[in-house]
Amino acid sequence: MRPVRQNDEQAIRELVQRWLDASKRHDLDTVLSLMADDVLFMVPGQKPFGKDGFAAANEAMNDVTMEAESDIQEIKVLGDWAWMHNFLRLTLTPSSGSPFVRSGHILTVLRKQPDGRWVIFRDANLLMPEGQK
Amino acid sequence: MRPVRQNDEQAIRELVQRWLDASKRHDLDTVLSLMADDVLFMVPGQKPFGKDGFAAANEAMNDVTMEAESDIQEIKVLGDWAWMHNFLRLTLTPSSGSPFVRSGHILTVLRKQPDGRWVIFRDANLLMPEGQK
Repeated sequence: MRPVRQNDEQAIRELVQRWLDASKRHDLDTVLSLMADDVLFMVPGQKPFGKDGFAAANEAMNDVTMEAESDIQEIKVLGDWAWMHNFLRLTLTPSSGSPFVRSGHILTVLRKQPDGRWVIFRDANLLMPEGQK
Repeated sequence: MRPVRQNDEQAIRELVQRWLDASKRHDLDTVLSLMADDVLFMVPGQKPFGKDGFAAANEAMNDVTMEAESDIQEIKVLGDWAWMHNFLRLTLTPSSGSPFVRSGHILTVLRKQPDGRWVIFRDANLLMPEGQK
C-alpha cells in the first residue's frame, strides 16, 4: 500500500463528488475548473466537444433539476495519469415537465496538473435514456 | 524520444490493424487473443460485457462483410498501461441486405502483458448508426 496512490484515488473520488454537487446547483464555473483546458468529451451520436461545447450544452440544463447516483467501478492511478470506470444514473426534472432518467457507463482519463489537482482529460460518456437500446 | 515508448505506440497501432484484419476475415480466435481475459467492453444502451459476450455477439456477424476505416487520434503509453482515442467507421453488408454504416469514437485502455504483448483491457465504444443522434 503506497499512501500517495491512496491519496490520489481519494482525490479522484472527491473530484467526482464535487462535479456532481456543482452540477446539481448549476455552478458551471466549478464544473469547468474540474476539467483540463484541452478536455475532450465523447458522447454517442455527436462529434467530440471541449470546454466551450460543454459550457454551451450546459446552458440548456439551467432549468433542469438533477439527482445523481454515481457508482465508481474502478480507478487506476498511473503516476500523473489515471483512468476511471464509473456508472452514473441521472434523474432530470425540467421546471415544466416530467422527470426522465439517463444512465450508463463512463470511461474517463484523468490528469494530475502541476499544482497537484486532478482534472478530467478524456471522457467517453455512454449515458442513454433508460430503456432505450 | 525514448525508443521503447515509440515501439509500444507502434505495437498498439499494429494491434488495431490486426484486430480489424481479423474481424474482416471472421477470425474470432485472433480477435479474442488481442483482448485481456478480464476485458470489459462498454457500448451505448447495454450492460458492459467481457470476452464471452464479445464472442456471442460476434456470431451474429458471421454473414456480414465488413469494411473498416480506422483513424487513431491519440495514443498515450504509461509504462505497462496505455490509453488510445480512435475514430472508427464500419461499412457492414449482410449477405442478404443493404450496406449500413456505423461510426464513432472509441476510448480504450490497453495493458501490456508479462509476455510483452499489448491487449485491450477497457473499451468504451460510441459507434452508432450514421446520421442517428
